Amino acid sequence: MTSQAKTQIEQAIEAQRNRQFYAAYPENPKAYAEDANAKGLESFQKYLNTDFTGIAENPHQTRVGEEVSPYMMVGLGVQYPFYEAEDLVTYARNAWPAWRNTGVEKRAEILVNSLNNIAERFFEIAYATMHTTGQSFVMSFQASGPHANDRAMEVLSLAYQELNRFEKSVEWVKPMGKFDLKINKTFQPIPRGISLVIGCSTFPTWNTVPGLYASLIAGNPVIVKPHPKSILPIAIVVEEIQKALLEAGLQANVVQMAPDTLANPITKKLAEHHDVKLIDYTGGSAFGDYIESLSGKITFTEKAGVNSVILDSVNDPQAVFNNIAFSACLYSGQMCTAPQNIFVPETGISTAEGHLGFDDVVAGIGNAIKGLVENPKMGPYTLGAIQNDLTVNRVDEAKKYTQVALDSIPVQHPDFPDARMKSPVVMVTEASNVEVWQHECFGPAVFVVKTKDSISSLQLAAKSASSLGAITCLCYTTSEAFRDEVAATMNEAFTPVSFNFTGAAFVNQHAAFSDFHVSGGNPSGNAGFTNPEYVNRRFVWVGNRFA
Amino acid sequence: MTSQAKTQIEQAIEAQRNRQFYAAYPENPKAYAEDANAKGLESFQKYLNTDFTGIAENPHQTRVGEEVSPYMMVGLGVQYPFYEAEDLVTYARNAWPAWRNTGVEKRAEILVNSLNNIAERFFEIAYATMHTTGQSFVMSFQASGPHANDRAMEVLSLAYQELNRFEKSVEWVKPMGKFDLKINKTFQPIPRGISLVIGCSTFPTWNTVPGLYASLIAGNPVIVKPHPKSILPIAIVVEEIQKALLEAGLQANVVQMAPDTLANPITKKLAEHHDVKLIDYTGGSAFGDYIESLSGKITFTEKAGVNSVILDSVNDPQAVFNNIAFSACLYSGQMCTAPQNIFVPETGISTAEGHLGFDDVVAGIGNAIKGLVENPKMGPYTLGAIQNDLTVNRVDEAKKYTQVALDSIPVQHPDFPDARMKSPVVMVTEASNVEVWQHECFGPAVFVVKTKDSISSLQLAAKSASSLGAITCLCYTTSEAFRDEVAATMNEAFTPVSFNFTGAAFVNQHAAFSDFHVSGGNPSGNAGFTNPEYVNRRFVWVGNRFA
Repeated sequence: MTSQAKTQIEQAIEAQRNRQFYAAYPENPKAYAEDANAKGLESFQKYLNTDFTGIAENPHQTRVGEEVSPYMMVGLGVQYPFYEAEDLVTYARNAWPAWRNTGVEKRAEILVNSLNNIAERFFEIAYATMHTTGQSFVMSFQASGPHANDRAMEVLSLAYQELNRFEKSVEWVKPMGKFDLKINKTFQPIPRGISLVIGCSTFPTWNTVPGLYASLIAGNPVIVKPHPKSILPIAIVVEEIQKALLEAGLQANVVQMAPDTLANPITKKLAEHHDVKLIDYTGGSAFGDYIESLSGKITFTEKAGVNSVILDSVNDPQAVFNNIAFSACLYSGQMCTAPQNIFVPETGISTAEGHLGFDDVVAGIGNAIKGLVENPKMGPYTLGAIQNDLTVNRVDEAKKYTQVALDSIPVQHPDFPDARMKSPVVMVTEASNVEVWQHECFGPAVFVVKTKDSISSLQLAAKSASSLGAITCLCYTTSEAFRDEVAATMNEAFTPVSFNFTGAAFVNQHAAFSDFHVSGGNPSGNAGFTNPEYVNRRFVWVGNRFA
Repeated sequence: MTSQAKTQIEQAIEAQRNRQFYAAYPENPKAYAEDANAKGLESFQKYLNTDFTGIAENPHQTRVGEEVSPYMMVGLGVQYPFYEAEDLVTYARNAWPAWRNTGVEKRAEILVNSLNNIAERFFEIAYATMHTTGQSFVMSFQASGPHANDRAMEVLSLAYQELNRFEKSVEWVKPMGKFDLKINKTFQPIPRGISLVIGCSTFPTWNTVPGLYASLIAGNPVIVKPHPKSILPIAIVVEEIQKALLEAGLQANVVQMAPDTLANPITKKLAEHHDVKLIDYTGGSAFGDYIESLSGKITFTEKAGVNSVILDSVNDPQAVFNNIAFSACLYSGQMCTAPQNIFVPETGISTAEGHLGFDDVVAGIGNAIKGLVENPKMGPYTLGAIQNDLTVNRVDEAKKYTQVALDSIPVQHPDFPDARMKSPVVMVTEASNVEVWQHECFGPAVFVVKTKDSISSLQLAAKSASSLGAITCLCYTTSEAFRDEVAATMNEAFTPVSFNFTGAAFVNQHAAFSDFHVSGGNPSGNAGFTNPEYVNRRFVWVGNRFA
């Protein structure tokens, strides 16, 4: 490994052990070259209505591509080569031997190099993300650029440690009394097999690169199956990995893109293929449950979750309402970490400024959302656009069955008049109306759920986490005893809790090297970014003995 | 943790990282007190035809116990309290909170103490093992005593590392330009839930204690479901863990015994119970496949394997035949690591003493087995007794369908005239007769399979490992090139290879702290002793954040 790559890995190892703040790639766009933004935009625009030729091509007969910009509401017109599942598997199988024999040090170097090269294209990836997911430019830049790269670097560092965990060659000497029994032993981490990484439409790189890099560094070939509506961002990432592979004299097919269409999906064919041994998946629960049920596969899933806010008592109510409002508005609730159900006691909450009734709390949250959404410098850029119509329809449907405290507010995006936008709807419901709030309502919608008291709020949140899954929980309380109870109870449901977040701390954001993302312990998914088993299960320790 | 326990853990951590020889508990019976053997025998004899009262008792209405000594061919008459599955789960659930809140340090101390106390009872456990499994006294002592304790200590040391892997409390400070964002974070390994450990009849402690101790140190309560024919050895182990728990002021029910009968098994009820989250299993493949298929469970299985010997070329043929003979005779082939299929080229093998034809090789192996079996000082003590009639019948049935080169030789055990004994049968078959050799024939039987050449032998062994599973492979070759090819090909089927074992090195023996046991990569099982995921998957990292 080059000393630069080695240093990068070592810094990342130290960071993820300590779990303190660390960024391998700066998240501020201003930290990059002055002309990077303009060049990135130009590069993105060049892709429109052309064949994407960045990724290495195998023989193919057709191209596919049906991405639509949620900002411009027109198709991007980017066309990618289409391959049948069987062909992808064959190419992966052929590329595998050289990759598995490349050795951990060299694999790490190639992959770190690819990340450094991807960083040169963060702006281009940002525009590609913006115009496939609907994220704002800043979120697109951060989530698909530095934050995704950070997660990949975190995975590489953890895997590098694990792949070097045990002595690889030892002389084992057992005293037998009259003589010593000597056996030379070797221990090798053997890659599991072909890895399939299934992406989602909203976070096409952030949710894909951890599994992709984890499988690669362990020596497995990877087939990336992007969501048909979010291909371009990850195609650029795969292009850079392929370049790094080719530069090292390896086959590009170590990592392949497998674009398909909504009408003719190939995911099941790939997932069920005998030679596919590892599957990473981000997306809806029904398909995720199917992926988990496949026999003979090791799966890493992130599925739906229903995230709770428990409002018990606060110091500064306005700061709390603002914080909740921002978390609900950020990317219009299209984050797996966004809060959905806000549990508030029917008697209201105590604050440092006096008691607030239930209706006051509802109004406070609604007004904070309204204030943010209607702020022209903040609203459109926080909300971003809605990735697809289903999300809009889902929220409109939900409104029919309960009381609406704040309806969607029409928002115009100053740069994109046709942008598909929808600000969060605030709905109010009794806790007993479980059919209203006890399911995922992905998108710009929050339910304020009226409960008997805070203990009841906690019980409902914990039950919801255990039965429906939860990726986050946000709790506001000034009571230490209640705080401890919430922590213990929600943690028992394998849900992390963020307490009393105000200001710049938001429950939606899970930082690489510090916050685990998805615990793997409740129905929101069976794996987490990034704990040791996330990398360990992609290879197998096998020892040989030589007398 | 006491400094003694801490030292024991630290030595074990160092040992499993280095993978060199280490024994936490000496394997030589002579290393223990002079009167330990006599006392152990006396203790064992006191159990016969009585109620076992060592384990803490919950209310129960009946007792069960149907163990039979394969040496004496009479029932042991030991009776254990019987509990319904639902009651066991309830007791486990009730004992859990105090255990999970005990903290890793204290849990480690309690569990190390229990191992040290178990070591005081190795002889008693040895006799219990001998008279339930049929193992010889020495194997019973080593496998159920020090070797089992070593595996448990290895698990504790690995889990102790993993449970302390990340900082548990940090102040996370993110520079935001004009200010710093400060968030206090805590990270906790949260235990998964109730753990079920299903034992087997042949290695009642060695195969049970790794899962048992791994689940316990991670904070999970455990229900031990022993094989109805091998309860006593693990009951003594559980008794000592319960004593250590009680001494620390905890409930004995943190670990429970769940004995049942062949006629009325409770395993499925336990395995399918919603609250059971972790399942360890050792036994046949059909039931193991069922265990792996259960949704919502994390499973660790060791199932059947078909182990191969690849005979290509040797230096000293007699040394090789003797080694294979010993491995085939040891505990009459009732080890999951015992060789079954010996692949020999139809043209024979080259040796330092000249060429040996195929028939010479068959004769050599047969004569070596005959020599060992008929040696009155070696034979009975190497073979031990056959655990159950099915094993005898299976071998008798196999003989009908192929050529027998060496039939079973009648053996008398000098101490136990009624012992159920059967020396290995050597059968010869063409490679094309796959129905003869391409399935597990557990017990005292080896098949010498005539192949085209050594490359063909390797291909057959690898295919067998991939499709039927394999826990070991033994290869004899003087060619470096072929050695490398065998290693690469068998490792790709996730099977470890032992090369050119002669003298005191035997393929059957997997040493704690050094050899992984079962790779988890082929159908012989989905988990291995003892790699990091074996402990990591028993708990979940969950972080909380405090603004």
